[in-house]
Amino acid sequence: MDKEYIVKLLEGVKNGDVDISDAVEKISYEPYSDIDYAKIDNNRKLVQNVGEVIYGESKTHEQIIGIVSKMKQSDNSEILITRLDKDKAEEVSKHFEMRYDKNSRMGIVCGEKVVPSGNDVHILCAGTSDLPVAEEAALTLEFLGHNAVRIYDVGVAGLHRLLSHVDEISKAKVIIVIAGMEGALASVVGGLTSAPVIAVPTSIGYGANFGGLSALLSMLNSCASGVGVVNIDNGFGAAMLANRILGRKA
Amino acid sequence: MDKEYIVKLLEGVKNGDVDISDAVEKISYEPYSDIDYAKIDNNRKLVQNVGEVIYGESKTHEQIIGIVSKMKQSDNSEILITRLDKDKAEEVSKHFEMRYDKNSRMGIVCGEKVVPSGNDVHILCAGTSDLPVAEEAALTLEFLGHNAVRIYDVGVAGLHRLLSHVDEISKAKVIIVIAGMEGALASVVGGLTSAPVIAVPTSIGYGANFGGLSALLSMLNSCASGVGVVNIDNGFGAAMLANRILGRKA
Amino acid sequence: MDKEYIVKLLEGVKNGDVDISDAVEKISYEPYSDIDYAKIDNNRKLVQNVGEVIYGESKTHEQIIGIVSKMKQSDNSEILITRLDKDKAEEVSKHFEMRYDKNSRMGIVCGEKVVPSGNDVHILCAGTSDLPVAEEAALTLEFLGHNAVRIYDVGVAGLHRLLSHVDEISKAKVIIVIAGMEGALASVVGGLTSAPVIAVPTSIGYGANFGGLSALLSMLNSCASGVGVVNIDNGFGAAMLANRILGRKA
Amino acid sequence: MDKEYIVKLLEGVKNGDVDISDAVEKISYEPYSDIDYAKIDNNRKLVQNVGEVIYGESKTHEQIIGIVSKMKQSDNSEILITRLDKDKAEEVSKHFEMRYDKNSRMGIVCGEKVVPSGNDVHILCAGTSDLPVAEEAALTLEFLGHNAVRIYDVGVAGLHRLLSHVDEISKAKVIIVIAGMEGALASVVGGLTSAPVIAVPTSIGYGANFGGLSALLSMLNSCASGVGVVNIDNGFGAAMLANRILGRKA
Amino acid sequence: MDKEYIVKLLEGVKNGDVDISDAVEKISYEPYSDIDYAKIDNNRKLVQNVGEVIYGESKTHEQIIGIVSKMKQSDNSEILITRLDKDKAEEVSKHFEMRYDKNSRMGIVCGEKVVPSGNDVHILCAGTSDLPVAEEAALTLEFLGHNAVRIYDVGVAGLHRLLSHVDEISKAKVIIVIAGMEGALASVVGGLTSAPVIAVPTSIGYGANFGGLSALLSMLNSCASGVGVVNIDNGFGAAMLANRILGRKA
Amino acid sequence: MDKEYIVKLLEGVKNGDVDISDAVEKISYEPYSDIDYAKIDNNRKLVQNVGEVIYGESKTHEQIIGIVSKMKQSDNSEILITRLDKDKAEEVSKHFEMRYDKNSRMGIVCGEKVVPSGNDVHILCAGTSDLPVAEEAALTLEFLGHNAVRIYDVGVAGLHRLLSHVDEISKAKVIIVIAGMEGALASVVGGLTSAPVIAVPTSIGYGANFGGLSALLSMLNSCASGVGVVNIDNGFGAAMLANRILGRKA
Amino acid sequence: MDKEYIVKLLEGVKNGDVDISDAVEKISYEPYSDIDYAKIDNNRKLVQNVGEVIYGESKTHEQIIGIVSKMKQSDNSEILITRLDKDKAEEVSKHFEMRYDKNSRMGIVCGEKVVPSGNDVHILCAGTSDLPVAEEAALTLEFLGHNAVRIYDVGVAGLHRLLSHVDEISKAKVIIVIAGMEGALASVVGGLTSAPVIAVPTSIGYGANFGGLSALLSMLNSCASGVGVVNIDNGFGAAMLANRILGRKA
Amino acid sequence: MDKEYIVKLLEGVKNGDVDISDAVEKISYEPYSDIDYAKIDNNRKLVQNVGEVIYGESKTHEQIIGIVSKMKQSDNSEILITRLDKDKAEEVSKHFEMRYDKNSRMGIVCGEKVVPSGNDVHILCAGTSDLPVAEEAALTLEFLGHNAVRIYDVGVAGLHRLLSHVDEISKAKVIIVIAGMEGALASVVGGLTSAPVIAVPTSIGYGANFGGLSALLSMLNSCASGVGVVNIDNGFGAAMLANRILGRKA
Repeated sequence: MDKEYIVKLLEGVKNGDVDISDAVEKISYEPYSDIDYAKIDNNRKLVQNVGEVIYGESKTHEQIIGIVSKMKQSDNSEILITRLDKDKAEEVSKHFEMRYDKNSRMGIVCGEKVVPSGNDVHILCAGTSDLPVAEEAALTLEFLGHNAVRIYDVGVAGLHRLLSHVDEISKAKVIIVIAGMEGALASVVGGLTSAPVIAVPTSIGYGANFGGLSALLSMLNSCASGVGVVNIDNGFGAAMLANRILGRKA
Repeated sequence: MDKEYIVKLLEGVKNGDVDISDAVEKISYEPYSDIDYAKIDNNRKLVQNVGEVIYGESKTHEQIIGIVSKMKQSDNSEILITRLDKDKAEEVSKHFEMRYDKNSRMGIVCGEKVVPSGNDVHILCAGTSDLPVAEEAALTLEFLGHNAVRIYDVGVAGLHRLLSHVDEISKAKVIIVIAGMEGALASVVGGLTSAPVIAVPTSIGYGANFGGLSALLSMLNSCASGVGVVNIDNGFGAAMLANRILGRKA
Repeated sequence: MDKEYIVKLLEGVKNGDVDISDAVEKISYEPYSDIDYAKIDNNRKLVQNVGEVIYGESKTHEQIIGIVSKMKQSDNSEILITRLDKDKAEEVSKHFEMRYDKNSRMGIVCGEKVVPSGNDVHILCAGTSDLPVAEEAALTLEFLGHNAVRIYDVGVAGLHRLLSHVDEISKAKVIIVIAGMEGALASVVGGLTSAPVIAVPTSIGYGANFGGLSALLSMLNSCASGVGVVNIDNGFGAAMLANRILGRKA
Repeated sequence: MDKEYIVKLLEGVKNGDVDISDAVEKISYEPYSDIDYAKIDNNRKLVQNVGEVIYGESKTHEQIIGIVSKMKQSDNSEILITRLDKDKAEEVSKHFEMRYDKNSRMGIVCGEKVVPSGNDVHILCAGTSDLPVAEEAALTLEFLGHNAVRIYDVGVAGLHRLLSHVDEISKAKVIIVIAGMEGALASVVGGLTSAPVIAVPTSIGYGANFGGLSALLSMLNSCASGVGVVNIDNGFGAAMLANRILGRKA
Repeated sequence: MDKEYIVKLLEGVKNGDVDISDAVEKISYEPYSDIDYAKIDNNRKLVQNVGEVIYGESKTHEQIIGIVSKMKQSDNSEILITRLDKDKAEEVSKHFEMRYDKNSRMGIVCGEKVVPSGNDVHILCAGTSDLPVAEEAALTLEFLGHNAVRIYDVGVAGLHRLLSHVDEISKAKVIIVIAGMEGALASVVGGLTSAPVIAVPTSIGYGANFGGLSALLSMLNSCASGVGVVNIDNGFGAAMLANRILGRKA
Repeated sequence: MDKEYIVKLLEGVKNGDVDISDAVEKISYEPYSDIDYAKIDNNRKLVQNVGEVIYGESKTHEQIIGIVSKMKQSDNSEILITRLDKDKAEEVSKHFEMRYDKNSRMGIVCGEKVVPSGNDVHILCAGTSDLPVAEEAALTLEFLGHNAVRIYDVGVAGLHRLLSHVDEISKAKVIIVIAGMEGALASVVGGLTSAPVIAVPTSIGYGANFGGLSALLSMLNSCASGVGVVNIDNGFGAAMLANRILGRKA
Repeated sequence: MDKEYIVKLLEGVKNGDVDISDAVEKISYEPYSDIDYAKIDNNRKLVQNVGEVIYGESKTHEQIIGIVSKMKQSDNSEILITRLDKDKAEEVSKHFEMRYDKNSRMGIVCGEKVVPSGNDVHILCAGTSDLPVAEEAALTLEFLGHNAVRIYDVGVAGLHRLLSHVDEISKAKVIIVIAGMEGALASVVGGLTSAPVIAVPTSIGYGANFGGLSALLSMLNSCASGVGVVNIDNGFGAAMLANRILGRKA
Repeated sequence: MDKEYIVKLLEGVKNGDVDISDAVEKISYEPYSDIDYAKIDNNRKLVQNVGEVIYGESKTHEQIIGIVSKMKQSDNSEILITRLDKDKAEEVSKHFEMRYDKNSRMGIVCGEKVVPSGNDVHILCAGTSDLPVAEEAALTLEFLGHNAVRIYDVGVAGLHRLLSHVDEISKAKVIIVIAGMEGALASVVGGLTSAPVIAVPTSIGYGANFGGLSALLSMLNSCASGVGVVNIDNGFGAAMLANRILGRKA
């Protein structure tokens, strides 16, 4: 809690401007709404500088609809729902106007859009198969007001495809690298740029890929220093980290 | 390769200003020195915006001394040597003036310092035992010209220790969080700030810590979105990522 | 076997009050019913101080029905069936009156209820997605006669949600903490209370969560001393441990 | 923070009894001493109901001596230092009177003892090789004022050794079970008692023991419900959990 | 190849009784039938002393039917098909008379039965859930002519259930112990008998069971010396090892 | 980039034969077609000496059809599609003439065939269950113009089946060994030949096979030196490596 | 407990031949000596049919000497001490006459020898490096009165070395197969004999051997049915299992 | 066994040219010398086309000296001893003239050299730290008569260092790629050449490198098809596979 804020409050109490019960309320205020199965942050946008997001994967559609309803009461912003499978998306669409992207399994409940930041984030992915994760990152970035620059299918086994983008890469502000299999793309890109590189291992592959473990370990051990890794298939998290990096400049 | 640069080169060739053999040389130029067991980048500083660094762990002291000598021929900047154990440090010190930090096992061969960036990076670590890694990050940041703000021993089991720094945390530009055991500090800090959080798992702990695996998985699965993870005990890499993030602002 | 009991028995044999064949029977008595595919403890309630429980997951509905029937012959208590999926629940319901909770997949075959213990157990869970496990714990506690105090969706990434319950937490007798992803909640809660903390890792999450491994390792490595961990998703086991702790006070 | 406490403080402010700067101080009070590389909790004893403990493993002897000195300034209680190897113990002994147990690598800096609790905790271990961990638990319990009842070398391969203690086991308040190899002792004991069982896997064994993993997984999967597991070789943690359980009764 | 056999053959060649081409044929004889996708051992029964067995899991029903047909041409013995799911069983039944056990997924194509060996093998399993594996072992033993003595649901958490069978256990010739979860039964039984113990870990359990890994490691680390472990869920393999042990006595 | 090529280009520029913009184009030429979700190498055949291949597993049928269409524009060669499940195969067949092998899930879009190489590659597999992987290798080899010699079901448990092929094995040019379970075939074959052995672990097996891990580790640790391992179930990759080995001889 | 024994005891009590206190003593008799840090079985030899064995690895030499002394009080048999390193062996030798084998780290305290069983056990090992484990098995067998037939360095990469022993192998009663690296020897031998095969994986190897894991998984997944596996490097356990198998015939 | 050879032998027997006992001898001939702890192949050179090699790691120097002595009796070729640490090397040098390379821990006992093959094998390694493994490969190749072309320190983070060798790489016959950390070099090189690529993961790195696992998984999952992987740090094995590939061309 901010000392200044407490000082002001206490001065208010001292000179009678603020009621004791009000001050108590304020000091121990719970800044969220409680709807039994979920607590909804009313000031997360303020604290973490992002719009509202619901992680859809292990929630029922009833729970999602309940949370959206509650959010809509206090705020008319767009709401992003991640990992929303098709069946749940259909249920949610019956209650709210929503844009849905089948590929990345993301839904955006319509509302006021965030003001554009004017910032580009470059998203490189190694193969066509990594697209769902790449699009999760791209759509999240767009939801957050940034511009997603897509450079897809540039895996290192065909180095010329990547090298033809060297110019763009060397000038990027933030780069998200998405790769499955051996995840080598992160190291190669890391060596071609001085921008922060956010690496997303994907579970694409088979056999000794072990659900993305090969790409994950690869990226953590990158010989290019200055690569930050997020969870396997976590395009959303990569976009959120890019946003934190860019948010600092606003 | 930059198209503009090639266009200029070709115009020079066309109007006779540039010799064909020179142009060939330039286009296929090898921008490094080769000393048999190592290739030394002569323009890495340019490309990646960092000073010279030698990863000392699995090099012999003869190799390290050879590499430093070669570097000193083209440039008098400070040189950072990481993971340099005490015995090798003594050997290197016989040939070059060097500051050595026993705790983080880092040596800095004296030379011209980098111009200060004026940027703060906050380093939070969970326990006294994480200090060697934290200092590896701090000294690397200082080598790179940034200001390392050390907030140590603020593990989540004594939450009040962390909360007394909430003000600083919420205003930081970039935060490095270093923790072993369960690595929970990254998630808690991630929720208290909108700055980018770089998480470093350490191998501190025993038993089911499995050499840092517990903290690593913990940080990759952080419920706070926007946390980028580097390798276990990799304080150096965290500092390099912080530098990439800040470098963008210069 | 209890020496006193044997002494008495032998004295009975000596003075003719007890028949030799009866004594043999008693000494080597099999205190369970055998129904071919299962042995039903007739005195487990006595020994371990809990009602009857059937682990439903890998039993067929025919087996479950057979076991319940046998139990009902000797005792009319309520019977708890865990991990009972919907299809099996329907089959069982055809034979016995049963309350069924879809979320936690638990059924309770009606019968005499346990006498309430008057004890509270606090259940904290990190996210809405952890609810099925949390409810498994809560319903088991209620089945055992305790009072389950539910504090849900208080994950550490939004620390204020947790901190608004500090009072309750610091006064609790026993606390069950349920969390997936990085499982940090156990450590934070462990530092806020002197009550025993029972930690339940959940398989909620994806990628490097590895089916709950991240939360499991996290909790085992908790920097808060005095946290006991049960198996992944094992809400039932957590409740049973809480019962053992409270049972001692009765 | 406690509402009542805040109300009182604010009433003091209102009627002038409490200075605003004092109130600010109190509300945002940092309840620890900061000695650069460590923050020492001045009121942990109060909050968590235990004496002072220092985790010695990855601290230098200089750091340990510094922390003990600081602690001694505010309080003359005994101080427990865990995982203190012989060399460090000798250094610490030069500055403070200390009892040292080589087997469990624990030191106790002399001071006022805790008042005995009158409670027994039973410690069962499977083999002679588990003794160091068992003694870590036993000495910690004694440091905390409890009575450690040692029942050693009762592994399940010689069941009669265990069964001859059935009486004691069935009457215990809290049981700590320590076993390496296959860790089966926890399950067997769990079935013989209704007391809470705290299981400590040890790294005793070889080959597919994988540093204690076999016993750890075994105990987490115990078929006896109500077993809480702590980290591998963590005798200290087991004692702390026992203390939390017993502390509730005080 | 047996020297004696070669000597005889060569003597035959020398004295003209055996044709050179015949001898070549015999020496390099391929003792199996080749049906394109499978090679069927015509003398495995001879060499390894068991009837014909087909591992059904990853074969198509067409392949299984083809193999059975080929076998039937040279021999009318019963044929055991393991891991045969219901759909394939139906297909096979259209071509051959077959007894099918749904629980263990085993089919026996009718034919001449093996002569009974008169030997008992005791099969102990820990819980009702382990039945499919236990029955795989039992039916295989019966197919091989032995007598399977089933002692089911005697897990160590209810030790009295096991102890009531101590007599039988201590007199058994060969014991197969089948258990999931923590697999402790193998160690306990190993201590109660001097017979060879064959341990079968099962994948029964959840969470940190990791598909049978917990029981597998447990059994490999058994503190009772002289326990031989087979693969997870491999009831068939356990029966085959029992047969090898008994076969020696015939 | 080839220096000679650049010299020629620059000479052209100097004497006006080549336009500057053309030269720029050529130097930074992107040798692939971009169809939004995929970049198609127009000269991979040239560089890597193989026909066109599409990895079908994680592409939608729409994407596959799009890629094939684009390829067909520049070249009428056969196109191999791997890991193409039946449903996608049906969709693709609506647009192009295609041969499909259900067993190995491979489709070959008709076109000009590769000129036969006249080379044999021997494929040995351990069991009938390994056939899908073996056929993936065989069909890929045939697609590449080689002759696949199939020696199937020669697992080491029936050594005579393998030994009857010793002649062929000892004379082979390249051998692909495919085995699941314990993967021992690679070591045995490696000892019987001086040809390069390419080992393919398969995921055939259960329990402690862990999805092919047992065979993978086995093959990597082969006591026969000179065995190269590819990914689990990667028959395609094995064929590609065989092709590289043979390609050198063309 | 044996019913017959109890019946007799009770009859004794009834007719006054047996004192009640004696009967109590006998029924609840603790058949071991307790020397504080160890409980020594006085009748294990009886129950499990083996001589006395001490697992030396994690015991201090003081503990070992104490245990041997206690054993010697009741029995003058030879005592086997396993995993006894050289330093401890020297200490023990000061107190007792002992034969020590440096290679297998086993000591045998002199005493009465076991009566020879007349049984052969064949020990096959794959390489010279596996000798320490092979000798642990061989010496244990000899200690137990059996005859160890050593067939060493017959790894599958040189199949002819193994095949020259086919005769012996096919006639063996029990076979112990010891192999590191890929452990293929167990499968090959399993196919050449109908005797029970006990497989011992060793930690010989490097890299992806992972401390014996490769051989362990290999042996568990053996395609030859009827192979029982013991822990990594556990030559002692293999000999004990062989003894159980042979013991049955005595 | 070769049919032709048997035919000839039998014809000899028939017409009396060959003695029966000689023929028996020949058919069942053991083509190795047995020196108790090792069996030495007298015709391995013939069968596998390589000189004599001794794997030194887990042999005592006495064993190594014994094996060399035996080999020298039948053949005066050079003998390669791998993984020979300095102390053993000194002992061996007392008995035989030997060249020793400290870096790769290899010794070559002097003798007749192999005839040069005239073939180049390119060895690329990622960093200076990979040198010991690279030299193990290079010296083995030279021992086998090939020419090792060393291209060291060309890791992908500084792509220009690698690209300056593109010409050489694209023309190589066989390429060995050696890399630790994320092992990305194999994929990049695989895409630049049509030669067979042998990938050697090294254990260089720390933290989530897990002893070479990261590079191993990376290389197995290479997006460049046609890469064969050998064990971690197995430079020797890579050279042996290269030899097999080249040997075929001789």
